[in-house]
Amino acid sequence: MRSIDWQDGHIVAIDQTRLPGELVLMEIHTVEDLVEAIKRLAIRGAPALGAAGALGAAIAVRDPGRRDKALDALRTARPTAVNLAWGVDQAMARHVDGPDAVLAAAIGVLDDDAVRNRALGERGADWLATRVQGPVVVQTHCNAGALACVEWGTALGVVRSLHERDRLGHVYVDETRPLLQGSRLTSWELTEMGIDHTVIVDSAAATVLARGLADAVVVGADRITANGDVVNKIGTYPLALAAQRAGRPFVVAAPESTIDLGLVSGDQVEIEVRDPDEVLAIGGLPGTATLNYAFDVTPADLVTVIVTENRVLRPELGERPA
Amino acid sequence: MRSIDWQDGHIVAIDQTRLPGELVLMEIHTVEDLVEAIKRLAIRGAPALGAAGALGAAIAVRDPGRRDKALDALRTARPTAVNLAWGVDQAMARHVDGPDAVLAAAIGVLDDDAVRNRALGERGADWLATRVQGPVVVQTHCNAGALACVEWGTALGVVRSLHERDRLGHVYVDETRPLLQGSRLTSWELTEMGIDHTVIVDSAAATVLARGLADAVVVGADRITANGDVVNKIGTYPLALAAQRAGRPFVVAAPESTIDLGLVSGDQVEIEVRDPDEVLAIGGLPGTATLNYAFDVTPADLVTVIVTENRVLRPELGERPA
Repeated sequence: MRSIDWQDGHIVAIDQTRLPGELVLMEIHTVEDLVEAIKRLAIRGAPALGAAGALGAAIAVRDPGRRDKALDALRTARPTAVNLAWGVDQAMARHVDGPDAVLAAAIGVLDDDAVRNRALGERGADWLATRVQGPVVVQTHCNAGALACVEWGTALGVVRSLHERDRLGHVYVDETRPLLQGSRLTSWELTEMGIDHTVIVDSAAATVLARGLADAVVVGADRITANGDVVNKIGTYPLALAAQRAGRPFVVAAPESTIDLGLVSGDQVEIEVRDPDEVLAIGGLPGTATLNYAFDVTPADLVTVIVTENRVLRPELGERPA
Repeated sequence: MRSIDWQDGHIVAIDQTRLPGELVLMEIHTVEDLVEAIKRLAIRGAPALGAAGALGAAIAVRDPGRRDKALDALRTARPTAVNLAWGVDQAMARHVDGPDAVLAAAIGVLDDDAVRNRALGERGADWLATRVQGPVVVQTHCNAGALACVEWGTALGVVRSLHERDRLGHVYVDETRPLLQGSRLTSWELTEMGIDHTVIVDSAAATVLARGLADAVVVGADRITANGDVVNKIGTYPLALAAQRAGRPFVVAAPESTIDLGLVSGDQVEIEVRDPDEVLAIGGLPGTATLNYAFDVTPADLVTVIVTENRVLRPELGERPA
């Protein structure tokens, strides 16, 4: 099953806010509903947002009078991931050929995503299998699995490829506060695949590395800038610091569409600040100030490799995406 | 009000599991009840555990037949903080003089704690006021406030001393998963004191430092080993990595009683592993494996200064507690 797909003239997508308790499918017929689903993170993950952008464009072009406003709302539903606007652009590139061509292009984005993720999963598994002796113990953050994509996954795609080769040792899953994409989504996906894993609070990630329990960190990305800086879920940067200190590789698994050559470095990326309730809902005093950054920037010198469907880049050695 | 005290022949202590919702006082008459309160973290914080150990000894000596078993249970109620056994020893040092002498020694531990924390708070504020120009913005982790002590606090004692001098800018409070001592307890204490603060998820702490929002990290400690390694709440170590990368001082505020010269380094400290439910209760899949370390080890080279009631030590420069 794809996490997001097109069926009978509308979008069908897993409501990721309901996992792991229930597997609920949403039927989305309008761009307004799609934007709302993206904002509340019912649809999330950089590649899945690319697919959502493309399918949303296919809906938007059906109503020329409201098209431009709808596309604007869609592009800016969340500010940090580059894939959302990229997905819109991929589909709209066929706009001169009419609505059916836009839809065909959007479906092409989905098919492509699955193929590209498979390729990057294999490439990442190749790299780790060479670098690590025996079963590879992976530590990951947030959810860069099938749910974050159309299918297969990026960081978890690497994990799946290792698992298929019988080279996977174990997976440490950071819970990923505030919205728990690790303990809710990644843990659910790994359970579905029958992969042994251990959930830890984000604060324990550095200790797992310091104690030599994990061989490598593998994460996804929401945007990669021209200098090799990686913007990903909040908590990725301290994990990279801990991996460097422990002498373990820090691997970013992301499709080429995540790379944004228009931005020189991570400093230029707008970091989404989300609602205080996400932080305060458990335990906090209502009304307390928060600073709820959704993402952080991992400087290129902490990134051992970026693995895409096409290549393995070594930012820590000064290699740049272009 | 003291977080833990002796009144009318028994212990009176704030139930820290009920904050910030309710301020509930517990009356504790037996060592069994005290051990249970310590295990469930109703009483917590290294200096408060020292006071609890001392007062518990005063209860234990009333019943010679069960004394040794009770003292064993008390000393080992939690394994990581050195202060618990230290408090027992302080009170039991007067055992030859009878139960009243043990109680007097225990009350002495409480009185001493307040005086020592004040002194270390002033010393820490002196150090920061010299090092930082203008109002000092502090980042802290867990709760090393009055609740973690008898009164005044260690890390938050430094914050209070800065506040009294009108040299405090702002406080960033890490929520401190899994039990949220930051968003529940530190935020409550700061609110009571009228100190402006911002609560963040633990994963955002490194970004607060990377963006230059905080001038210094100030934390407490559960045990400091002979080489200057600092054992403190899980999440302290990655915060030290982030402070080093950002070029900001990492300050440990703890009484001399936290220093354990019997252990060469942090590797020798037993790190408590707590119940999976603490991690999985929000969002997780029941039955999933966890590795719920309660503490981590910050290597001495990442510690700018350790401030006690007597001195300022610079572990990063190779200075050792003894």
